[in-house]
Amino acid sequence: MSMGMDSQMMLRPIGHIRTPWQTLDDCPGGPGRDGGTARLDILPEYAEGLFALEAPELDLLYWFDRAPRDVLRSVSPHDEAERGVFAMRSPHRPNPVALSRVPLIAVEGNTLVVGALDCLDGTALIDIKPVSRGGVPKR
Amino acid sequence: MSMGMDSQMMLRPIGHIRTPWQTLDDCPGGPGRDGGTARLDILPEYAEGLFALEAPELDLLYWFDRAPRDVLRSVSPHDEAERGVFAMRSPHRPNPVALSRVPLIAVEGNTLVVGALDCLDGTALIDIKPVSRGGVPKR
Repeated sequence: MSMGMDSQMMLRPIGHIRTPWQTLDDCPGGPGRDGGTARLDILPEYAEGLFALEAPELDLLYWFDRAPRDVLRSVSPHDEAERGVFAMRSPHRPNPVALSRVPLIAVEGNTLVVGALDCLDGTALIDIKPVSRGGVPKR
Repeated sequence: MSMGMDSQMMLRPIGHIRTPWQTLDDCPGGPGRDGGTARLDILPEYAEGLFALEAPELDLLYWFDRAPRDVLRSVSPHDEAERGVFAMRSPHRPNPVALSRVPLIAVEGNTLVVGALDCLDGTALIDIKPVSRGGVPKR
């Protein structure tokens, strides 16, 4: 297999995440608060991808655009132990793709209302994947 | 927030996934078989990111490099219903990033031995995130 294919791994946003967090200091830095919501504004050219979406939970991939990509070790905020970035879920990593599982609350045209997210308002959304009711990802 | 940041979403491989599957026809197309394993060969320049990695399970992000990126609707292989690609976990999607949760079996230098994966041998690995024992992703 040609490893030359690796050089073409470019992403484009399928939409943007709307949250109340306007600066990094605003971001709660953890799982969403009970009762909070976020909105996923899907770009019109990708809206057809939402057809027949009905999973109660979604795995979201999005881009930590403010995160440094040259950090390989850091101190975990939870136990203050120094760990490699692949041993933590910090935004600081070579490929700053965030992963969060949220409930799907409503579909309003090209906008999905989901459980609260702690990312900056306007964050680029990369992908949406459904989660099956049993918790096992469905294909 | 400047949406101009979106144009810089380029990924680079942190390593490559080794599986028995040499062609698309070989790929089992579903969750790993019991007893099978895959290997994650981490590139030397990113190996420091593995320091103190001890989670029993990992969320892996990798690249479906053979997948068409211009498909927005498809027929689900499970129930033969037509759905948007965000309502399925098919490789066909605008940003073909795969997501799989696997057990971490062993660490052998810069190589992680994990549960079986159904991707092509040599697939580019994008990220590794630990999963906490409670099933809630740890940060």
